[in-house]
Amino acid sequence: MNFCSQCGSAEIALRIPDGDTLPRFVCGQCATIHYQNPKIVVGCLPEWGDQVLLCKRAIEPRYGLWTLPAGFLENGETLIAGAARETLEEANARVDVGELYTIISLPHINQVYMMFRARLADLDFGPGSESLEVSLFDESVIPWETLAFRTITRTLRNFFLDRKLGNEATHVSALVRRAPVPPDLRGAA
Amino acid sequence: MNFCSQCGSAEIALRIPDGDTLPRFVCGQCATIHYQNPKIVVGCLPEWGDQVLLCKRAIEPRYGLWTLPAGFLENGETLIAGAARETLEEANARVDVGELYTIISLPHINQVYMMFRARLADLDFGPGSESLEVSLFDESVIPWETLAFRTITRTLRNFFLDRKLGNEATHVSALVRRAPVPPDLRGAA
Repeated sequence: MNFCSQCGSAEIALRIPDGDTLPRFVCGQCATIHYQNPKIVVGCLPEWGDQVLLCKRAIEPRYGLWTLPAGFLENGETLIAGAARETLEEANARVDVGELYTIISLPHINQVYMMFRARLADLDFGPGSESLEVSLFDESVIPWETLAFRTITRTLRNFFLDRKLGNEATHVSALVRRAPVPPDLRGAA
Repeated sequence: MNFCSQCGSAEIALRIPDGDTLPRFVCGQCATIHYQNPKIVVGCLPEWGDQVLLCKRAIEPRYGLWTLPAGFLENGETLIAGAARETLEEANARVDVGELYTIISLPHINQVYMMFRARLADLDFGPGSESLEVSLFDESVIPWETLAFRTITRTLRNFFLDRKLGNEATHVSALVRRAPVPPDLRGAA
Protein backbone atom coordinates (compact mmCIF):
# COMPACT_ATOMS: atom_id res chain seq x y z
CA MET A 1 0.00 0.00 0.00
CA ASN A 2 1.63 3.22 -1.27
CA PHE A 3 -1.37 5.57 -1.38
CA CYS A 4 -4.60 6.00 0.60
CA SER A 5 -7.48 4.52 -1.43
CA GLN A 6 -9.83 6.96 0.30
CA CYS A 7 -8.11 10.37 -0.21
CA GLY A 8 -5.12 9.58 -2.47
CA SER A 9 -2.49 10.81 0.00
CA ALA A 10 0.98 9.22 -0.02
CA GLU A 11 1.25 9.77 3.76
CA ILE A 12 0.65 6.10 4.57
CA ALA A 13 2.30 4.81 7.74
CA LEU A 14 2.30 1.34 9.26
CA ARG A 15 1.48 2.03 12.91
CA ILE A 16 -0.69 0.82 15.80
CA PRO A 17 -3.87 2.95 15.93
CA ASP A 18 -5.13 4.19 19.33
CA GLY A 19 -7.00 1.42 21.13
CA ASP A 20 -5.66 -1.24 18.77
CA THR A 21 -2.95 -3.84 19.34
CA LEU A 22 -1.58 -4.47 15.83
CA PRO A 23 0.10 -2.26 13.21
CA ARG A 24 -2.20 -1.15 10.37
CA PHE A 25 -1.77 1.03 7.29
CA VAL A 26 -3.06 4.41 8.50
CA CYS A 27 -3.49 7.54 6.35
CA GLY A 28 -1.77 10.59 7.85
CA GLN A 29 -4.10 12.88 5.84
CA CYS A 30 -7.65 11.54 6.32
CA ALA A 31 -6.93 9.08 9.20
CA THR A 32 -8.53 6.13 7.40
CA ILE A 33 -7.32 2.80 8.82
CA HIS A 34 -6.80 0.21 6.07
CA TYR A 35 -7.40 -3.20 7.65
CA GLN A 36 -6.10 -6.31 5.91
CA ASN A 37 -7.49 -9.73 6.79
CA PRO A 38 -7.13 -13.36 5.71
CA LYS A 39 -8.94 -14.66 2.65
CA ILE A 40 -11.01 -17.82 2.38
CA VAL A 41 -10.19 -20.43 -0.26
CA VAL A 42 -13.26 -22.60 -0.76
CA GLY A 43 -13.54 -25.79 -2.78
CA CYS A 44 -14.81 -29.34 -3.18
CA LEU A 45 -13.62 -32.91 -2.99
CA PRO A 46 -15.93 -34.28 -5.73
CA GLU A 47 -16.65 -38.03 -5.56
CA TRP A 48 -17.98 -40.41 -8.19
CA GLY A 49 -18.29 -43.92 -6.76
CA ASP A 50 -14.87 -44.76 -5.34
CA GLN A 51 -13.13 -42.12 -7.44
CA VAL A 52 -12.31 -38.47 -6.82
CA LEU A 53 -12.01 -35.67 -9.35
CA LEU A 54 -8.78 -33.70 -9.71
CA CYS A 55 -7.81 -30.78 -11.95
CA LYS A 56 -4.37 -30.15 -13.51
CA ARG A 57 -3.59 -26.46 -13.10
CA ALA A 58 -3.28 -24.29 -16.21
CA ILE A 59 -2.21 -21.26 -14.15
CA GLU A 60 0.50 -20.24 -11.72
CA PRO A 61 1.26 -20.90 -8.97
CA ARG A 62 1.95 -24.62 -9.43
CA TYR A 63 1.19 -24.76 -13.15
CA GLY A 64 0.87 -28.37 -14.28
CA LEU A 65 0.29 -29.84 -10.82
CA TRP A 66 -2.91 -31.53 -9.65
CA THR A 67 -5.44 -29.98 -7.30
CA LEU A 68 -9.01 -30.14 -6.08
CA PRO A 69 -11.27 -27.43 -7.53
CA ALA A 70 -10.98 -24.42 -5.19
CA GLY A 71 -10.53 -20.66 -5.21
CA PHE A 72 -11.18 -17.43 -3.35
CA LEU A 73 -14.64 -16.94 -1.87
CA GLU A 74 -16.25 -13.87 -3.46
CA ASN A 75 -18.11 -11.03 -1.80
CA GLY A 76 -21.86 -11.71 -1.75
CA GLU A 77 -21.38 -15.47 -1.82
CA THR A 78 -22.05 -18.24 0.71
CA LEU A 79 -19.38 -20.90 1.32
CA ILE A 80 -21.44 -23.62 -0.35
CA ALA A 81 -22.20 -21.43 -3.38
CA GLY A 82 -18.48 -20.60 -3.68
CA ALA A 83 -17.46 -24.26 -3.51
CA ALA A 84 -19.97 -25.17 -6.23
CA ARG A 85 -18.94 -22.21 -8.42
CA GLU A 86 -15.23 -23.07 -8.26
CA THR A 87 -16.02 -26.68 -9.23
CA LEU A 88 -18.08 -25.48 -12.17
CA GLU A 89 -15.41 -22.98 -13.29
CA GLU A 90 -12.38 -25.26 -12.99
CA ALA A 91 -13.90 -28.62 -13.94
CA ASN A 92 -17.18 -27.74 -15.70
CA ALA A 93 -18.70 -30.09 -13.14
CA ARG A 94 -22.00 -29.88 -11.31
CA VAL A 95 -21.94 -31.18 -7.74
CA ASP A 96 -24.17 -31.68 -4.74
CA VAL A 97 -22.11 -30.02 -2.02
CA GLY A 98 -22.08 -32.08 1.20
CA GLU A 99 -20.38 -31.75 4.57
CA LEU A 100 -17.66 -29.24 5.35
CA TYR A 101 -14.63 -31.51 5.57
CA THR A 102 -11.25 -29.80 6.09
CA ILE A 103 -10.58 -26.31 7.44
CA ILE A 104 -6.90 -25.42 7.25
CA SER A 105 -5.39 -22.13 8.47
CA LEU A 106 -2.33 -20.92 6.52
CA PRO A 107 -1.24 -17.95 8.65
CA HIS A 108 2.00 -17.36 6.72
CA ILE A 109 0.03 -16.51 3.57
CA ASN A 110 -3.13 -15.16 5.26
CA GLN A 111 -5.48 -17.80 3.92
CA VAL A 112 -7.98 -20.28 5.35
CA TYR A 113 -8.87 -23.29 3.19
CA MET A 114 -12.40 -24.67 3.55
CA MET A 115 -13.00 -27.86 1.58
CA PHE A 116 -16.39 -29.55 1.27
CA ARG A 117 -17.17 -33.12 0.35
CA ALA A 118 -19.31 -33.27 -2.79
CA ARG A 119 -21.01 -35.74 -5.14
CA LEU A 120 -20.64 -35.31 -8.89
CA ALA A 121 -24.08 -35.01 -10.47
CA ASP A 122 -22.94 -36.71 -13.70
CA LEU A 123 -19.85 -37.48 -15.81
CA ASP A 124 -20.24 -34.41 -18.00
CA PHE A 125 -17.08 -32.55 -16.89
CA GLY A 126 -13.91 -31.22 -18.49
CA PRO A 127 -11.22 -28.57 -18.10
CA GLY A 128 -12.28 -24.95 -17.47
CA SER A 129 -9.98 -22.11 -18.49
CA GLU A 130 -7.79 -22.56 -15.37
CA SER A 131 -7.30 -26.32 -15.90
CA LEU A 132 -5.26 -28.29 -18.46
CA GLU A 133 -7.03 -31.55 -17.70
CA VAL A 134 -9.73 -32.91 -15.37
CA SER A 135 -9.88 -36.57 -14.44
CA LEU A 136 -11.26 -39.14 -11.99
CA PHE A 137 -8.74 -41.06 -9.87
CA ASP A 138 -8.90 -44.23 -7.82
CA GLU A 139 -7.00 -44.04 -4.53
CA SER A 140 -4.25 -46.28 -5.97
CA VAL A 141 -3.40 -43.81 -8.75
CA ILE A 142 -3.64 -40.45 -6.95
CA PRO A 143 -0.62 -38.44 -8.17
CA TRP A 144 0.71 -37.79 -4.63
CA GLU A 145 4.07 -36.55 -5.91
CA THR A 146 2.57 -33.93 -8.19
CA LEU A 147 -0.20 -32.44 -6.05
CA ALA A 148 -0.17 -28.64 -6.12
CA PHE A 149 -0.69 -27.71 -2.47
CA ARG A 150 -0.19 -29.30 0.95
CA THR A 151 -3.80 -28.39 1.80
CA ILE A 152 -4.91 -30.67 -1.04
CA THR A 153 -2.58 -33.50 0.04
CA ARG A 154 -3.89 -33.25 3.59
CA THR A 155 -7.53 -33.20 2.48
CA LEU A 156 -7.08 -36.27 0.27
CA ARG A 157 -5.08 -38.19 2.91
CA ASN A 158 -7.77 -37.47 5.52
CA PHE A 159 -10.44 -38.57 3.07
CA PHE A 160 -8.97 -41.95 2.17
CA LEU A 161 -8.12 -42.70 5.79
CA ASP A 162 -11.58 -41.69 7.05
CA ARG A 163 -13.17 -43.78 4.31
CA LYS A 164 -11.17 -46.83 5.41
CA LEU A 165 -12.03 -46.30 9.09
CA GLY A 166 -15.65 -45.29 8.53
CA ASN A 167 -15.01 -41.94 10.23
CA GLU A 168 -17.26 -38.94 9.73
CA ALA A 169 -15.44 -35.90 11.01
CA THR A 170 -14.63 -32.30 10.25
CA HIS A 171 -10.87 -31.68 10.39
CA VAL A 172 -9.62 -28.32 11.68
CA SER A 173 -5.88 -27.80 11.41
CA ALA A 174 -3.13 -25.41 10.42
CA LEU A 175 -0.06 -25.41 8.20
CA VAL A 176 2.23 -22.86 9.73
CA ARG A 177 5.24 -22.75 7.46
CA ARG A 178 5.95 -22.36 3.80
CA ALA A 179 7.01 -25.63 2.14
CA PRO A 180 9.91 -25.46 -0.31
CA VAL A 181 8.98 -26.50 -3.85
CA PRO A 182 11.49 -29.01 -5.25
CA PRO A 183 13.10 -27.51 -8.38
CA ASP A 184 11.88 -30.38 -10.55
CA LEU A 185 8.27 -29.61 -9.64
CA ARG A 186 8.41 -25.88 -10.42
CA GLY A 187 6.30 -25.40 -13.51
CA ALA A 188 6.06 -29.16 -14.02
CA ALA A 189 3.87 -30.21 -16.92
CA MET B 1 -12.27 3.06 -3.29
CA ASN B 2 -11.48 6.48 -4.81
CA PHE B 3 -7.75 6.16 -5.55
CA CYS B 4 -5.39 3.34 -6.53
CA SER B 5 -3.45 2.23 -3.44
CA GLN B 6 -0.61 1.13 -5.72
CA CYS B 7 0.03 4.23 -7.90
CA GLY B 8 -2.28 6.92 -6.42
CA SER B 9 -4.26 7.46 -9.63
CA ALA B 10 -7.92 8.54 -9.40
CA GLU B 11 -8.71 6.57 -12.58
CA ILE B 12 -10.45 3.77 -10.71
CA ALA B 13 -13.22 1.97 -12.58
CA LEU B 14 -15.49 -0.86 -11.49
CA ARG B 15 -15.27 -3.27 -14.43
CA ILE B 16 -14.89 -6.96 -15.30
CA PRO B 17 -11.19 -7.65 -16.04
CA ASP B 18 -10.29 -9.84 -19.05
CA GLY B 19 -10.75 -13.52 -18.18
CA ASP B 20 -12.73 -12.70 -15.05
CA THR B 21 -16.47 -12.96 -14.43
CA LEU B 22 -17.11 -10.31 -11.76
CA PRO B 23 -16.63 -6.53 -11.61
CA ARG B 24 -13.52 -5.40 -9.71
CA PHE B 25 -11.95 -2.04 -8.93
CA VAL B 26 -9.31 -1.70 -11.68
CA CYS B 27 -6.74 1.10 -11.98
CA GLY B 28 -6.77 2.75 -15.42
CA GLN B 29 -3.19 3.95 -14.87
CA CYS B 30 -1.20 0.97 -13.56
CA ALA B 31 -3.80 -1.78 -14.27
CA THR B 32 -3.75 -3.11 -10.71
CA ILE B 33 -6.88 -5.13 -9.89
CA HIS B 34 -8.08 -4.49 -6.35
CA TYR B 35 -9.85 -7.65 -5.21
CA GLN B 36 -12.21 -7.50 -2.25
CA ASN B 37 -13.19 -10.68 -0.41
CA PRO B 38 -15.25 -11.74 2.61
CA LYS B 39 -13.80 -11.49 6.10
CA ILE B 40 -13.83 -14.15 8.79
CA VAL B 41 -15.31 -13.42 12.20
CA VAL B 42 -13.93 -15.95 14.66
CA GLY B 43 -15.00 -16.53 18.24
CA CYS B 44 -15.85 -18.88 21.11
CA LEU B 45 -18.82 -20.27 22.97
CA PRO B 46 -17.10 -20.53 26.38
CA GLU B 47 -18.61 -23.03 28.82
CA TRP B 48 -18.26 -23.37 32.58
CA GLY B 49 -20.26 -26.36 33.84
CA ASP B 50 -23.80 -25.83 32.55
CA GLN B 51 -23.26 -22.12 32.00
CA VAL B 52 -22.07 -20.09 29.03
CA LEU B 53 -20.18 -16.81 29.04
CA LEU B 54 -21.60 -13.75 27.31
CA CYS B 55 -20.26 -10.20 26.87
CA LYS B 56 -22.32 -6.99 26.83
CA ARG B 57 -21.03 -4.84 23.99
CA ALA B 58 -19.37 -1.51 24.83
CA ILE B 59 -19.03 -0.59 21.14
CA GLU B 60 -21.18 -0.11 18.08
CA PRO B 61 -22.79 -1.82 16.31
CA ARG B 62 -25.28 -3.15 18.85
CA TYR B 63 -23.92 -1.26 21.85
CA GLY B 64 -25.39 -2.64 25.09
CA LEU B 65 -26.52 -5.96 23.59
CA TRP B 66 -25.13 -9.39 24.55
CA THR B 67 -22.80 -11.44 22.39
CA LEU B 68 -20.29 -14.27 22.41
CA PRO B 69 -16.65 -13.13 22.28
CA ALA B 70 -15.75 -12.85 18.56
CA GLY B 71 -14.06 -10.56 16.07
CA PHE B 72 -12.16 -10.37 12.79
CA LEU B 73 -9.46 -12.97 12.18
CA GLU B 74 -6.11 -11.18 11.76
CA ASN B 75 -3.43 -11.74 9.15
CA GLY B 76 -0.81 -14.19 10.40
CA GLU B 77 -3.25 -15.92 12.75
CA THR B 78 -4.82 -19.39 12.81
CA LEU B 79 -8.57 -19.75 13.43
CA ILE B 80 -8.03 -21.27 16.87
CA ALA B 81 -5.52 -18.57 17.88
CA GLY B 82 -7.97 -15.90 16.72
CA ALA B 83 -10.85 -17.41 18.70
CA ALA B 84 -8.71 -17.53 21.87
CA ARG B 85 -7.40 -13.97 21.34
CA GLU B 86 -10.89 -12.49 20.93
CA THR B 87 -12.03 -14.25 24.11
CA LEU B 88 -9.05 -12.86 25.99
CA GLU B 89 -9.56 -9.33 24.60
CA GLU B 90 -13.31 -9.09 25.15
CA ALA B 91 -13.74 -11.13 28.34
CA ASN B 92 -10.21 -11.33 29.83
CA ALA B 93 -10.86 -15.06 29.80
CA ARG B 94 -8.53 -17.94 29.05
CA VAL B 95 -10.09 -20.88 27.25
CA ASP B 96 -9.26 -24.29 25.88
CA VAL B 97 -10.62 -24.01 22.36
CA GLY B 98 -12.51 -27.16 21.31
CA GLU B 99 -14.46 -28.18 18.22
CA LEU B 100 -15.46 -25.85 15.43
CA TYR B 101 -19.19 -25.54 16.02
CA THR B 102 -21.08 -23.09 13.76
CA ILE B 103 -20.00 -21.71 10.39
CA ILE B 104 -22.43 -19.09 9.11
CA SER B 105 -22.12 -17.26 5.79
CA LEU B 106 -23.45 -13.69 5.73
CA PRO B 107 -23.18 -12.85 2.04
CA HIS B 108 -25.02 -9.50 2.32
CA ILE B 109 -22.24 -8.12 4.55
CA ASN B 110 -19.35 -10.21 3.16
CA GLN B 111 -18.61 -12.07 6.39
CA VAL B 112 -18.29 -15.69 7.49
CA TYR B 113 -18.74 -16.42 11.20
CA MET B 114 -16.75 -19.34 12.62
CA MET B 115 -17.58 -20.13 16.24
CA PHE B 116 -15.72 -22.71 18.32
CA ARG B 117 -16.85 -24.47 21.47
CA ALA B 118 -14.50 -23.72 24.36
CA ARG B 119 -13.94 -24.48 28.05
CA LEU B 120 -13.15 -21.64 30.45
CA ALA B 121 -9.86 -22.36 32.21
CA ASP B 122 -10.98 -20.58 35.41
CA LEU B 123 -13.41 -17.96 36.72
CA ASP B 124 -10.90 -15.13 36.48
CA PHE B 125 -12.67 -13.09 33.76
CA GLY B 126 -14.11 -9.62 33.34
CA PRO B 127 -14.90 -6.96 30.76
CA GLY B 128 -12.20 -6.01 28.23
CA SER B 129 -12.26 -2.55 26.64
CA GLU B 130 -14.98 -3.58 24.14
CA SER B 131 -17.32 -5.00 26.82
CA LEU B 132 -19.46 -3.32 29.49
CA GLU B 133 -20.01 -6.53 31.42
CA VAL B 134 -19.12 -10.22 31.18
CA SER B 135 -21.22 -12.87 32.88
CA LEU B 136 -22.09 -16.58 33.02
CA PHE B 137 -25.65 -17.58 32.12
CA ASP B 138 -27.73 -20.69 32.67
CA GLU B 139 -29.91 -21.63 29.71
CA SER B 140 -33.02 -20.42 31.56
CA VAL B 141 -31.71 -16.85 31.85
CA ILE B 142 -30.09 -16.32 28.42
CA PRO B 143 -31.13 -12.79 27.33
CA TRP B 144 -32.64 -13.97 24.02
CA GLU B 145 -34.36 -10.62 23.41
CA THR B 146 -31.19 -8.60 23.75
CA LEU B 147 -28.64 -10.69 21.85
CA ALA B 148 -26.56 -8.57 19.47
CA PHE B 149 -26.47 -10.70 16.32
CA ARG B 150 -28.52 -13.46 14.70
CA THR B 151 -25.31 -15.49 14.32
CA ILE B 152 -25.04 -15.52 18.11
CA THR B 153 -28.70 -16.44 18.60
CA ARG B 154 -28.34 -19.30 16.12
CA THR B 155 -25.13 -20.57 17.73
CA LEU B 156 -26.67 -20.57 21.22
CA ARG B 157 -29.94 -22.19 20.04
CA ASN B 158 -27.96 -24.94 18.29
CA PHE B 159 -25.87 -25.44 21.40
CA PHE B 160 -28.70 -25.86 23.90
CA LEU B 161 -30.63 -28.12 21.51
CA ASP B 162 -27.56 -30.29 20.75
CA ARG B 163 -26.82 -30.53 24.46
CA LYS B 164 -30.35 -31.76 25.13
CA LEU B 165 -30.22 -34.31 22.29
CA GLY B 166 -26.62 -35.40 22.88
CA ASN B 167 -25.69 -34.33 19.34
CA GLU B 168 -22.11 -33.64 18.31
CA ALA B 169 -22.20 -31.83 15.00
CA THR B 170 -20.70 -28.96 13.09
CA HIS B 171 -23.38 -26.65 11.71
CA VAL B 172 -22.85 -24.98 8.33
CA SER B 173 -25.51 -22.47 7.35
CA ALA B 174 -26.17 -19.03 5.92
CA LEU B 175 -28.13 -15.93 6.85
CA VAL B 176 -28.91 -14.27 3.58
CA ARG B 177 -30.75 -11.11 4.49
CA ARG B 178 -30.29 -8.18 6.79
CA ALA B 179 -32.55 -8.30 9.83
CA PRO B 180 -34.27 -5.06 10.84
CA VAL B 181 -33.28 -3.87 14.32
CA PRO B 182 -36.38 -3.00 16.37
CA PRO B 183 -36.21 0.70 17.34
CA ASP B 184 -36.30 -0.11 21.05
CA LEU B 185 -33.12 -2.23 20.71
CA ARG B 186 -31.06 0.38 18.85
CA GLY B 187 -28.37 1.48 21.27
CA ALA B 188 -30.11 -0.33 24.11
CA ALA B 189 -28.24 -0.24 27.41
